[in-house]
Amino acid sequence: MRSLDIGKVVAAVRDVVGQEGVVALHEPQFSGNEKSYLTDCIESTFVSTVGVYVSKFEMMLQQVTGSKHAIACVNGTAALQVALQIAGVRSSDEVIMPALTFVATANSASFIGAVPHFVDSERKTLGIGSKALSERLAAIGERANGSVRNRETGARIAAIIPMHTFGHPVDVEGIESVAADWRIPVVEDATEALGSLYHNRHVGTFGLLSALSFNGNKIITTGGGGAILTDDDELAARAKHLTTTAKAPHRWAFIHDEVGYNFRLPNINAALGCAQLEQLDRFIEQKRRLAERYRRAFETVAGVAVFVEQAGARSNYWLNTLIVEDPERRDELLAALNNDGLMARPVWTLMHRLPMYHDCPRGPLDVAEDLERRIVNLPSSAKFA
Amino acid sequence: MRSLDIGKVVAAVRDVVGQEGVVALHEPQFSGNEKSYLTDCIESTFVSTVGVYVSKFEMMLQQVTGSKHAIACVNGTAALQVALQIAGVRSSDEVIMPALTFVATANSASFIGAVPHFVDSERKTLGIGSKALSERLAAIGERANGSVRNRETGARIAAIIPMHTFGHPVDVEGIESVAADWRIPVVEDATEALGSLYHNRHVGTFGLLSALSFNGNKIITTGGGGAILTDDDELAARAKHLTTTAKAPHRWAFIHDEVGYNFRLPNINAALGCAQLEQLDRFIEQKRRLAERYRRAFETVAGVAVFVEQAGARSNYWLNTLIVEDPERRDELLAALNNDGLMARPVWTLMHRLPMYHDCPRGPLDVAEDLERRIVNLPSSAKFA
Repeated sequence: MRSLDIGKVVAAVRDVVGQEGVVALHEPQFSGNEKSYLTDCIESTFVSTVGVYVSKFEMMLQQVTGSKHAIACVNGTAALQVALQIAGVRSSDEVIMPALTFVATANSASFIGAVPHFVDSERKTLGIGSKALSERLAAIGERANGSVRNRETGARIAAIIPMHTFGHPVDVEGIESVAADWRIPVVEDATEALGSLYHNRHVGTFGLLSALSFNGNKIITTGGGGAILTDDDELAARAKHLTTTAKAPHRWAFIHDEVGYNFRLPNINAALGCAQLEQLDRFIEQKRRLAERYRRAFETVAGVAVFVEQAGARSNYWLNTLIVEDPERRDELLAALNNDGLMARPVWTLMHRLPMYHDCPRGPLDVAEDLERRIVNLPSSAKFA
Repeated sequence: MRSLDIGKVVAAVRDVVGQEGVVALHEPQFSGNEKSYLTDCIESTFVSTVGVYVSKFEMMLQQVTGSKHAIACVNGTAALQVALQIAGVRSSDEVIMPALTFVATANSASFIGAVPHFVDSERKTLGIGSKALSERLAAIGERANGSVRNRETGARIAAIIPMHTFGHPVDVEGIESVAADWRIPVVEDATEALGSLYHNRHVGTFGLLSALSFNGNKIITTGGGGAILTDDDELAARAKHLTTTAKAPHRWAFIHDEVGYNFRLPNINAALGCAQLEQLDRFIEQKRRLAERYRRAFETVAGVAVFVEQAGARSNYWLNTLIVEDPERRDELLAALNNDGLMARPVWTLMHRLPMYHDCPRGPLDVAEDLERRIVNLPSSAKFA
């Protein structure tokens, strides 16, 4: 293999973004009705948990994703937490997820008292692989009284969370098939994947429920925000109820029939979201064009490979990704890019290396550990396309 | 006693609000820099967890309250949850609080696995009384190894949450004295009380920590939002850390050293908050003028009494409150007001009547139960002053 010329990587990235000075990892684009909807929201005086933009945003999300229901939440972590709870995850249950993910995936299980259980990722999708999942369940799973238990810990395995890393769809078919075999519900962490398709169907619509995120660095932003998707009427009603303090409808009385959350997306954030969603098609087109430009720019650069989507997947290419051949040189590359003002970052520290998740159950994590050492995310704002 | 003439109450409320048609319980007022700051926020592209308005909003909150630190959060429930956790409340601990409160007070304890323990309220403040608190602790409390245990349940009593009902300061001195005797930390639920003073000092600055709320119906709004107040440098740093996913500072690496929350207030909501806070003095002046007008309007109306602040307290009069002499007629009064388009409501269902808190430990709740039957909140928008 030819060796990595770090100067060449920096020059290639600088050439693709086509901008001098400091370049952020991901900036939102506000070129639509953002100001107008915010002004309208202020003039209506409805800025909080009640307002037309929340319903409008939910309807737009349904249209974009093809999901029957969308329940807007205060952020993606909150959405995933409630989705897990509604999927039946209880305190002390285990939830299977990748170790290669943002900490919110593990936290969302932790908040309801559940325990993350880490399964290896695969190179072709960066998400959990069906082979790793199947092998891990075969190694530790046993069926008992209509549920699956981890025979090493005795805990129930209550859900599987595939995470669509950097917007790239997981091997949905493979994972669905293993999950169906074991009858374990799938809750998709689609927080990075708004606009990504798997066989022409929007990710987040395969699981029993899923979570989206509209944080500031995502493909569209509501400031902070997220949503729960589901096709199930009853689960959707539960999601709405649980995210709005579990208040029973009444003309004036305050009756809350269970412990509910203050997780409703405020109308003002939804207003921003409506303006952003109107531009989603263009953002995705730009992101995909930018990804293609990165791919071409690195064709002739030795020592790094640009990560590209699988056949059958249409990724939103939320974050562009280099895989560094020689992991010993990753930090040198990160330093060079950042020193040049090009904000680049490694992937998240794997979950089982964080102190609070160190003792969680896990299978072999060789691929995740290898990817962790090699991934570098590049500046990915849509405007560079 | 002369009997209640419901028509007179409706007429008096209608006269005070001075507006035809449907009148909301509480509407925000956006007559300052709201649009301009939101526009600025959009133009800066910083709408999310990083941005100048979050820091500015926190500094303004420090100035307004006199608290050394203010940490902006996604809502008041989140603020209270994190404040309790930082005050040392752990899973299975008990937290003393009024039964007469909004469900978020109890939920915030519940979210961290703690158990609400209800103590009676007093008529003069509508908050927990020092006598009820003292008697309850004498009845069930025992000192053991530097902490206080409930000898009936065996659980540690880890915190006391006084809640400043409708903006009216509790008997801070009395409660502080009992809490100091037992060495139990106080975490103030000041979610309704921004701008309220007790002996010229802002409520929320007496406890070890406290929580504010800026929900849509509060005296100022950020859409959804809240804040943690504390004078303690170390607790403030913990609050900031815990509300921002517990991420350790690093140029690019993702290291989270404990289970943290995605609870940071987005910059766009903080921008709204800055514009609102600039008008707080006027809002309070208006609210207090409106309260005075209600007081005068009801001087000659039999069967109801307007609740007024205690000597030494300056209330923000968030919600104006009638105490109905004959509780049998409360619902008739509520129906008449609402049928006339005047949105009025009873106080929250007491916490121990809700199914999820029914079995929580509690002392006698006679005053709270009596108040629950008699309270009616009236339309309280500042604009009616």
